[in-house]
Amino acid sequence: MGKSTNITYLAEQLQQRGVELVVTREPGGTALAESIRNVLLEVREESVGELTELLLMFAARAQHIEKLIEPALSAGKWVLSDRFTDATYAYQCGGRGVSVSLVRQLEHLVQGELRPDYTLLLDAPIDTGMSRARERGELDRFEREDRDFFQRVRDTYLQLAQESSGRFHVIDASLTLPEVQGTIDKICDELLQCWGVRRK
Amino acid sequence: MGKSTNITYLAEQLQQRGVELVVTREPGGTALAESIRNVLLEVREESVGELTELLLMFAARAQHIEKLIEPALSAGKWVLSDRFTDATYAYQCGGRGVSVSLVRQLEHLVQGELRPDYTLLLDAPIDTGMSRARERGELDRFEREDRDFFQRVRDTYLQLAQESSGRFHVIDASLTLPEVQGTIDKICDELLQCWGVRRK
Repeated sequence: MGKSTNITYLAEQLQQRGVELVVTREPGGTALAESIRNVLLEVREESVGELTELLLMFAARAQHIEKLIEPALSAGKWVLSDRFTDATYAYQCGGRGVSVSLVRQLEHLVQGELRPDYTLLLDAPIDTGMSRARERGELDRFEREDRDFFQRVRDTYLQLAQESSGRFHVIDASLTLPEVQGTIDKICDELLQCWGVRRK
Repeated sequence: MGKSTNITYLAEQLQQRGVELVVTREPGGTALAESIRNVLLEVREESVGELTELLLMFAARAQHIEKLIEPALSAGKWVLSDRFTDATYAYQCGGRGVSVSLVRQLEHLVQGELRPDYTLLLDAPIDTGMSRARERGELDRFEREDRDFFQRVRDTYLQLAQESSGRFHVIDASLTLPEVQGTIDKICDELLQCWGVRRK
């Protein structure tokens, strides 16, 4: 099942277990970052340069971190984000061919030492993902990319998951909703065991 | 007199002398870069992070260079831009306090070796600039900054002009229009003598 459904489910499960949670997304998460998202996703005649796209992604991320993520973390909350810098490695490096070392530089510049503690990768076959996007309606600038692009994106995500297997949990999103949600339940229990909840 | 009036005059003078010219501006210069300009200039409740602003400036610049400036230069045209990276040093470093070394890094990343050959700095007292902005109507996000901000911007511009005196020509914009335009005429003649015009 889709990413949004499962993020909502995950958020509910964490909140039911007493976690104070901020649910957000990238690119976006603040009004300004959402404006940048619109610039990034808009279908336009003018082709978007690779470097332009990359700098816009990190501009949105800088704002997101400074104005939403860091204040939330400082207040002891958890932050659940629909995409983060792994998506930049997958889409811009994997998909577009941007150099990994350049993304690492910008990651360091914008994030300092801030990295996600835990990452759920909902993995589905390319064709499943593409037909779900089409079902949602009008395709955005990324969703209009071809099969090869999404193959490279998926391959990069799976490679990242392998390289950082301690942080990543890959869920087979082609399973049934109860199966996926069963896995999410277990993950919530594990996370709470590992990190506990700072109750006010 | 104001920057727009004089840029128009300068463009006309160059074109009359046979220069094939592209007149553009920053942030902006392409449809996408103008969208980024709108994001940058919009007055909003959310404060804009320094790094966000800087990355947005360079995202717009990357697009401007790739889609407009480099193609124009490759076609043998001259490019006259209302603001360029000096403005980033003046506004973001001087005005906001962003580190010069960070701007240098991004300049190198986005521009490679591309630098302006010649820069006209129309210098006017702070109060003149601020009241001209007010006369133009609704102030944008930068124009709403205070006097101290614009003092730092002006000081930085003048310092850049001193450091790169071979490239900069400072015009006292508090002189009369005929005086300023007389100077622009002379500059056009000098530029044409130095560089000539590649006639088709």
